[in-house]
Amino acid sequence: MRMVDLIVKKRDGHELTDEEIRFWIDGYVKGEVPDYQSSAMQMAILFKGMSDREVSTLTDCMEHSGETLDLSGIKGIKVDKHSTGGVGDKTSLVLGPMVAACGAPVAKLSGRGLGHTGGTLDKLESIPGLTIAIEGERFEKQVNTIGLAIAGQTAHLVPADKKMYALRDVTGTVESIPLIAASVMSKKLASGADAILLDVTVGEGAFMKNMNDARRLATIMVNIGNRLGRNTKAVLSDMSEPLGFAVGNALEVKEAIDSLQGRGPEDLMELCYTAGSIMLVQSKCASSIEEGRAKLHEVINNGKAFEVFCKMVEMQEGDVSYILHPEKFEVSKNIIEIRAEDEGYVKSLNALEIGESSMRLGGGRATLEDVIDMSAGIVLHKKIGDDVKKGDILCTVYTNKSEKEYAPILEDIKKAFVLTKEFVLKRPVIREVIG
Amino acid sequence: MRMVDLIVKKRDGHELTDEEIRFWIDGYVKGEVPDYQSSAMQMAILFKGMSDREVSTLTDCMEHSGETLDLSGIKGIKVDKHSTGGVGDKTSLVLGPMVAACGAPVAKLSGRGLGHTGGTLDKLESIPGLTIAIEGERFEKQVNTIGLAIAGQTAHLVPADKKMYALRDVTGTVESIPLIAASVMSKKLASGADAILLDVTVGEGAFMKNMNDARRLATIMVNIGNRLGRNTKAVLSDMSEPLGFAVGNALEVKEAIDSLQGRGPEDLMELCYTAGSIMLVQSKCASSIEEGRAKLHEVINNGKAFEVFCKMVEMQEGDVSYILHPEKFEVSKNIIEIRAEDEGYVKSLNALEIGESSMRLGGGRATLEDVIDMSAGIVLHKKIGDDVKKGDILCTVYTNKSEKEYAPILEDIKKAFVLTKEFVLKRPVIREVIG
Repeated sequence: MRMVDLIVKKRDGHELTDEEIRFWIDGYVKGEVPDYQSSAMQMAILFKGMSDREVSTLTDCMEHSGETLDLSGIKGIKVDKHSTGGVGDKTSLVLGPMVAACGAPVAKLSGRGLGHTGGTLDKLESIPGLTIAIEGERFEKQVNTIGLAIAGQTAHLVPADKKMYALRDVTGTVESIPLIAASVMSKKLASGADAILLDVTVGEGAFMKNMNDARRLATIMVNIGNRLGRNTKAVLSDMSEPLGFAVGNALEVKEAIDSLQGRGPEDLMELCYTAGSIMLVQSKCASSIEEGRAKLHEVINNGKAFEVFCKMVEMQEGDVSYILHPEKFEVSKNIIEIRAEDEGYVKSLNALEIGESSMRLGGGRATLEDVIDMSAGIVLHKKIGDDVKKGDILCTVYTNKSEKEYAPILEDIKKAFVLTKEFVLKRPVIREVIG
Repeated sequence: MRMVDLIVKKRDGHELTDEEIRFWIDGYVKGEVPDYQSSAMQMAILFKGMSDREVSTLTDCMEHSGETLDLSGIKGIKVDKHSTGGVGDKTSLVLGPMVAACGAPVAKLSGRGLGHTGGTLDKLESIPGLTIAIEGERFEKQVNTIGLAIAGQTAHLVPADKKMYALRDVTGTVESIPLIAASVMSKKLASGADAILLDVTVGEGAFMKNMNDARRLATIMVNIGNRLGRNTKAVLSDMSEPLGFAVGNALEVKEAIDSLQGRGPEDLMELCYTAGSIMLVQSKCASSIEEGRAKLHEVINNGKAFEVFCKMVEMQEGDVSYILHPEKFEVSKNIIEIRAEDEGYVKSLNALEIGESSMRLGGGRATLEDVIDMSAGIVLHKKIGDDVKKGDILCTVYTNKSEKEYAPILEDIKKAFVLTKEFVLKRPVIREVIG
């Protein structure tokens, strides 16, 4: 078998056999297939796509390119949730404890933020002392004890994805939907959960800019999961504006704490209830979506979800006093209110602009080497559909940067808000459920 | 400027600026742009194409990636001819002397054969003693003295093409028409001729399998040449069957000698007259195609073309006694006649099969390291449209391989001939003239 023949086959629109896909991925991980052939193949896939069978085989090969996590020591049907990324997306911090409090074991591996999207690990690390480096027996024991652990992905999982993603990043093939699907699903499958709930974000602030692409990605990923023996479902959620009000690491943790105490933003909570009820059915902790939803409301109202979160912080060596007294979180030196210069309804609130501005304020990374300022970020006061009077606060900006540094960022944040005189409907956060 | 952004731009179907193309090619030659980005770019170009301006700029950058030949020491309008490759294509050996004998200086750099197509350099080297390693002043002096030199391309011309072609060969992007055009034209332009006549072959034995692709390639190359200041024209010639009767290095040289002495095969001569008359007009040695054609006939009839060929062999240190007495060429140990097992008209005569069979008989290279058996090859006795009686010789096979080795090849050669009971028209060799 020669790699060039496989590239030509795909380039000409033919399906690769399982053996051929395995030849590519195994060879690539071993260094026998060079980068320049892999990049040509990825570009051919970007143009010609992959069948469900092809992308499932690709995912399977990538999953088994390194270690896979064995969660068999954890009792019950382990359920995992994955978001394709967004701005202000603190869902895992709220949804994880909610689902765990209802009895479904959540053993979650998360990632870091890059560019305009944040990462759950960074958010968690804004809690002083908290470690995400929990592995093996300790990880297992924590899930068996309190039903929830959120840890960093170990270096040995899915080496094929690391190598392929780095290559895609510099060769213009990040956007291929089958390659995105295989990348996400290989990591999820290697993480060992029995059931997977995917949150595919759609809109300006998301990777998928329109419903068609989001639906395609979600459908492919659900097919992959189910073909490879995991109960997989997906929700498509709106990311044309940020989720909730807070954007930035410590700011989002505080919003998560509020949410777990029953004071969550409507969109964030709706996403948690919808996704959570599906997860409870997947893990057989509820017999219907309605029953799942009722149970989730209960654990918010009776404080059980908040309790699980506190226990998780404690078991992961975080300082729980910050959770009980969020006012302890360090606040940025500069707090600037941005006020409306006109009146009207918020017509759009560009999530990408807000995400990038938060990053530039210190709250995110432009490159993997950047150090995050945990206190930096933006708290929105108005969202799409809100009525704005002249002089109303649109948002509050938190930063430790100098005025010279942050002044141009404020201008960009202002531009993210577009007002109109016409009445604007609020956007529903859940766009569709798939699977 | 980042290479990944240029890849994305092309991938999304946008035109690259001249500056961007220069950034890519200069960076690639210097090793600053890695192979994996170039291969992704080439695959994107394969799918999205290039505008005339883009491909001209690409050619220009490639041409100037190394040394270029300065032919200003040669008097007259230097005219060059290039074929995109075929089976039995000894045109340069016949056309070069013909055109030179009419007064147009031909300073030609040629290539070697690979796969099913032969190369002019290999054919020339079947003449004992002949060297193709003539450069600089010696090359110039020879053209000024006798009007013709055929030499090997020096290592310093168009390094970008060498690197890009090697990469395309292993990444499935050999077939991109703009990349083929830039590869051919960058070499032709760097070789310094004032005018260029392209012979774009079309059919089973050629790189371009159909008229549409051949016409596109020819049109792009003619545009490139004219945009970059060289008078460029193209003929499209048939390569569904081999050109002439002989396939194989010494066999083809003998056919070239016959042709220069007025006994050439009809198709080969027609191609030489058509291409040659255009070249004579390009070099201002004829004021019209008709006049050019008449002059070419004259130099065949009066032996002047043959004389130029003999002088070239002499000046390039070849043993002219072989040209004057072609029976001196070494003959293969095994000479096998393949006879018709049925009767009818030759409907098709697969040039690709004949070319590959000749290679397998020892007459060509599968890899660049292979050593050629100069005497091996095939001489056709019947061509498309010919009337065949049972027992007629279809072709004669020459090889030094053992019977065990050549027996299966004979079977493949037989299969290349397809007979039919219906009358078949002979195929015209010239399909179209462009420019």
